[in-house]
Amino acid sequence: MNPTSAEERLERLNALPLRENLRGTVPYGAPQIDVPIQLNVNENTHPLPTAVREAIVTGVEGTLETLNRYPDREFTTMRESLARYLGHGLTADRLWAANGSNEVLQQILQAFAGPGRTLMSFPPTYSMYPLLAAGTDTGYIAGTREADFTLTAESAAAQVREHAPDVVIVCSPNNPTGTSTGLDVIEAVYAATEATRSMVIVDEAYAEFAHTGTPSALELLPGRERLIISRTMSKAFGMAGTRLGYMAAAPEVTDALRLVRLPYHLSAVTQAVALAALAHADALLATVEDIKAQRDRIVDGLDRLGLTPTPSDSNFVLFGPLQDPEAVWHGLLDAGVIIRDIGLHGRLRVSAGTEAETSAFLDRMQELADAGIAVPAP
Amino acid sequence: MNPTSAEERLERLNALPLRENLRGTVPYGAPQIDVPIQLNVNENTHPLPTAVREAIVTGVEGTLETLNRYPDREFTTMRESLARYLGHGLTADRLWAANGSNEVLQQILQAFAGPGRTLMSFPPTYSMYPLLAAGTDTGYIAGTREADFTLTAESAAAQVREHAPDVVIVCSPNNPTGTSTGLDVIEAVYAATEATRSMVIVDEAYAEFAHTGTPSALELLPGRERLIISRTMSKAFGMAGTRLGYMAAAPEVTDALRLVRLPYHLSAVTQAVALAALAHADALLATVEDIKAQRDRIVDGLDRLGLTPTPSDSNFVLFGPLQDPEAVWHGLLDAGVIIRDIGLHGRLRVSAGTEAETSAFLDRMQELADAGIAVPAP
Repeated sequence: MNPTSAEERLERLNALPLRENLRGTVPYGAPQIDVPIQLNVNENTHPLPTAVREAIVTGVEGTLETLNRYPDREFTTMRESLARYLGHGLTADRLWAANGSNEVLQQILQAFAGPGRTLMSFPPTYSMYPLLAAGTDTGYIAGTREADFTLTAESAAAQVREHAPDVVIVCSPNNPTGTSTGLDVIEAVYAATEATRSMVIVDEAYAEFAHTGTPSALELLPGRERLIISRTMSKAFGMAGTRLGYMAAAPEVTDALRLVRLPYHLSAVTQAVALAALAHADALLATVEDIKAQRDRIVDGLDRLGLTPTPSDSNFVLFGPLQDPEAVWHGLLDAGVIIRDIGLHGRLRVSAGTEAETSAFLDRMQELADAGIAVPAP
Repeated sequence: MNPTSAEERLERLNALPLRENLRGTVPYGAPQIDVPIQLNVNENTHPLPTAVREAIVTGVEGTLETLNRYPDREFTTMRESLARYLGHGLTADRLWAANGSNEVLQQILQAFAGPGRTLMSFPPTYSMYPLLAAGTDTGYIAGTREADFTLTAESAAAQVREHAPDVVIVCSPNNPTGTSTGLDVIEAVYAATEATRSMVIVDEAYAEFAHTGTPSALELLPGRERLIISRTMSKAFGMAGTRLGYMAAAPEVTDALRLVRLPYHLSAVTQAVALAALAHADALLATVEDIKAQRDRIVDGLDRLGLTPTPSDSNFVLFGPLQDPEAVWHGLLDAGVIIRDIGLHGRLRVSAGTEAETSAFLDRMQELADAGIAVPAP
């Protein structure tokens, strides 16, 4: 594609008047490698059911007559449909959506953070948070977790009181560790922001995969006008290619996002595809129970290999520390299985696939363990 | 939708920790009123040809098998297709796209502007520029034009040298005035930024509607690594509902935008729809000649009514000043025709529609002129 060398291109990039805080950074993104079994970016590996495909085609056909026109800037029908899906007595005026939950989060930072303000989250957590902060010139504050990656109400509240961030994000279930955060933690963080009146975001991208009985922070919305719950159709819905993220909050939060959203940010086609999927939510979410079962198989299997999986409420499992995580990653790739090295002290992250994909991963892990490659760090 | 009053909702919004520079602002956007003849937002009012509709459906069907996967983050096929469409020897590594040209411009400001930096454009021009500046905490500098809304090379260069902005946008053909900007102006602005090494954007959203022989600033790209030409599929392509904007520039500019783009910002469906449209560019652009003819009819018709249309290379015409622009706007709306009051000293802007829509507009204007309503300001 590019006749110049990578070095020369970097030199040319650096000769441009790039903003100083971007110099030396690299684009976000996992390697996109085409192998048979892709368990590296927490996708739902189940293809869409036929009924959903047909509904999507019909939905898109319905946009063609007026595709020359700008779409409904307020995407009202979609917000109504999202409210119905979430339940909890939510109404359309409390819903908002954008092209992926990253864009929702970016809009929230544009409205409530930015220069002179700060965003706090609790690493290890979703690695886009500091990048979203940088992209909006928001200061980033890295909180801490317990050694087992959990976050207690006491610790989270104390850290928030100490740093007084303008926006706090708690990811639950947390990526890349997989564990849900108790509602007591969210309540404590919210209470700790009463004085500073900061915004509190709970990123529930993986909520649908949580063990039965795990409550959603949606329960906490009534009476908390600075609380935002973000969700996505990329994971449980199996629609990563559609790029549809959304959030629920007080109506005035949606008013704030209207001030920073780009006009007509959701295309007519995106609205139609998401609507078709929401109309078939039951069919789409039918895969969730199977994925949860595969997730639990992974936890059990890695446990039996002595590889210390972290308890997971998501569609992925973090495990390790390993003696040689790079050798394990390459050993899996040699067998056509790609997982994710998230650069976390010898740990690797694997997404739960179909039963066959999960078996291929576990079988190969057994081989790598037998060969003395997949072994715990000393 | 909302049980609370508008006042109460504004009060609640103001009680949130909104960023200070957003307080008191209102969301961007023309009123979306459902009337038979909509000539207010410079859409291409011709519906998509059947062949294009079929190609879009086939394209979307092609995404369904892997819609559970994240899309190609590099949208390589689409960039190749956009390069072929633009010609001028361009290659995929010089192309970039996003959800509407507003998102392309926002990414450029995130990479090259932001806090402590400035954006300059020359009002009256596209009203999103200062909003995009505000959304990225970029200072906005409003340049000036001649009384007839043209911009000379000497004046533009002098203003750029005086204010030394970090990014300059020249809209050509200019919205809302309609007139093309000569390449001598772009060359002079670029030369005036040699010392400050500022980025220069030419927003050619309406380029396809220019009178035959009008050159594109694409001609100026070779050897100018700080020059960016932005385009859109919303206007001439008649695909406003698709939200696809793009730009051509040096390869290192695309590298800079990779640092700020949200991962997977273009959905698989958007990529498929745009590709289908580009494969049928000739069929889609067949409407352009008719629109140009209608645009010229509007200029002639308004000229005959003594209403001073501004010379237009776009698919819209600015006219006035009128004695009572509000009465003219309402008089048109009463006849089912909506045009745009862009708040410019008694002037109104009308998009060129189909032949029938254009006739309806001109006939009604004749009636309003005969009734003493559509008359020039004294």
